[in-house]
Amino acid sequence: MTARKIAVLGAGSWGTALAMVLAENGHDVRLWTHHQDQADEMIATGKNARYLPDLQLPKNISITSDLALALEGAELINFVVPTKAMRQVASQVLAVFQEAGVTNLPILMHASKGLEQGSHLRISQILEDVFSPLGEAKVVVLSGPSHAEEVAQHDITAITAAGTDQVACDFVQEVFMNDYFRVYTNPDIIGVELGGSLKNIIALGAGALVGAGFGDNAKAALLTRGLAEITRLGVTMGANPLTFMGLSGVGDLVVTATSVHSRNWRAGQQIGQGQSVEEVEAHMGMVVEGLATAVSAYELAQEKGVEMPITQAIYLVIKEGLSIKEVVTALMTRERKGELQFEDNLADLF
Amino acid sequence: MTARKIAVLGAGSWGTALAMVLAENGHDVRLWTHHQDQADEMIATGKNARYLPDLQLPKNISITSDLALALEGAELINFVVPTKAMRQVASQVLAVFQEAGVTNLPILMHASKGLEQGSHLRISQILEDVFSPLGEAKVVVLSGPSHAEEVAQHDITAITAAGTDQVACDFVQEVFMNDYFRVYTNPDIIGVELGGSLKNIIALGAGALVGAGFGDNAKAALLTRGLAEITRLGVTMGANPLTFMGLSGVGDLVVTATSVHSRNWRAGQQIGQGQSVEEVEAHMGMVVEGLATAVSAYELAQEKGVEMPITQAIYLVIKEGLSIKEVVTALMTRERKGELQFEDNLADLF
Repeated sequence: MTARKIAVLGAGSWGTALAMVLAENGHDVRLWTHHQDQADEMIATGKNARYLPDLQLPKNISITSDLALALEGAELINFVVPTKAMRQVASQVLAVFQEAGVTNLPILMHASKGLEQGSHLRISQILEDVFSPLGEAKVVVLSGPSHAEEVAQHDITAITAAGTDQVACDFVQEVFMNDYFRVYTNPDIIGVELGGSLKNIIALGAGALVGAGFGDNAKAALLTRGLAEITRLGVTMGANPLTFMGLSGVGDLVVTATSVHSRNWRAGQQIGQGQSVEEVEAHMGMVVEGLATAVSAYELAQEKGVEMPITQAIYLVIKEGLSIKEVVTALMTRERKGELQFEDNLADLF
Repeated sequence: MTARKIAVLGAGSWGTALAMVLAENGHDVRLWTHHQDQADEMIATGKNARYLPDLQLPKNISITSDLALALEGAELINFVVPTKAMRQVASQVLAVFQEAGVTNLPILMHASKGLEQGSHLRISQILEDVFSPLGEAKVVVLSGPSHAEEVAQHDITAITAAGTDQVACDFVQEVFMNDYFRVYTNPDIIGVELGGSLKNIIALGAGALVGAGFGDNAKAALLTRGLAEITRLGVTMGANPLTFMGLSGVGDLVVTATSVHSRNWRAGQQIGQGQSVEEVEAHMGMVVEGLATAVSAYELAQEKGVEMPITQAIYLVIKEGLSIKEVVTALMTRERKGELQFEDNLADLF
């Protein structure tokens, strides 16, 4: 395999774990963090103390807080920063490119989940938008069921690399694939990005049900009907419904919504136990993408006329302060109907 | 709501829980068990000591081991016996009907999961076959994510009633539906029966992975690829792929494959820890439908030319004594491919 120059932007647990996979595959990896002190500490200790404390980083990862240094000669740039920081980091990258007179964009990828607040753009759309002064960006998303800790420990993981440019997808598959990290390609970037983002809403809902004292049957019903409604929105946005049955849909939903390690699940559980959204956000000290995504998805569903009763219920809990028991009762007392009927309108919920 | 005469055949945990729902909805329920001593004990104690020990049965459930008595005047017969006993119990019912000169079949339903060994028939097909001397049976299947204990305790459950006769489906929906038990109808009985049956194979596989020490990422990958392959077989058999995204597919898969309460999951876990299939079956003392279903599904897949690598792997563990680690390694080292490619052939696995 040819060794490639690859920049990974963002040294959280997921960015660090992905940098480790690439380094172990023999690539020249530059891992960038905008925190100078985090970079210094990682260089000094050879570890990421905050996010993956138990693991030694491979020697062929260069850690830096100098963005220009991280990007120099990179054939692939992997953005792994929170959704709300994505546009800003991408703009900094663009500035470095423009400063250096770069005219040919390298392949861009990201491994984050969410929708931009307000614009409701998917992350690949944010990147396309920011980099448009340099031409049409080839963007790939890497998404699927993957606890960073398990990847870093070489536990088996299967994941999807999606994008409309097959050459770019194949490149990403090639650099990541090894005997514990199996990459499938998929041309449906809309479905993969929406599946990965919207599933956090349903994970949050599953946590909330458990927090409020409901059992496995109720959780399974919520996951199933939740999957149906995020698929419905996805299809309206141009996704292939089959993608939602894949790794970035069902697979990611299962691991997020049945694992107490998931931030979104835990945030939901605390809300289900009666904490306010503000209290939960203050406690977590980390980004809970599902909360922002629920609001964006609700707004999108309203705009597109798509029925999303579970998302709406979570929106009402977040924005209107309704309790989990109130919204569950409303969901359960809807009219009886066929399982494959998708034509219901939102009004029928409340 | 009109009170109906309903016979429930089989007093295991699920038959008993369903009888309780019907009785609480005001119906005249006869719960039949072929064990005279179990019937006597349940009548004496008002409880099902073996399967739902903590719960009092409603007074309007009549318990009997007299099949003719259970069936007398029944407008609906609900078969809730293990797959391997289905043909025999149905034949006994037919004999009672023929003895009594019954010419109009009542609505038949079942709530069991599996395929007949050898013939590979779905349960509704067994019932249609057995009752053919009395004309065309209208069969409905009730299937979905549902621990019996949770239903009996009025925890929220959503489930599917599927059949080709809409009037029969509506009847089943009507008699079961209440504020904790939500019934959706679906015309796709093939998909609902196959989803409910085949998901036990995947649950077994998920348990085996965990038993062998693999993590959440691997489990999510197995569930996702497993869902894809059971859908592939289902579609070949005439099912609607959307059904596998529903309650009897994804929903049931999630609850079975992530719950230590599931027999199939536990059987898999013990196999993953290195026990032989014979030891596991001896320990469980209950039917593990997934073991027989894996063999039937493998045979069906071979016959129809459908790729089912996970089912094949489990078949090889059951029948050829391969270890979980051996088959997982084989699965992970397959050629790289696209996520939506379904045309692979079986040969590519081993």
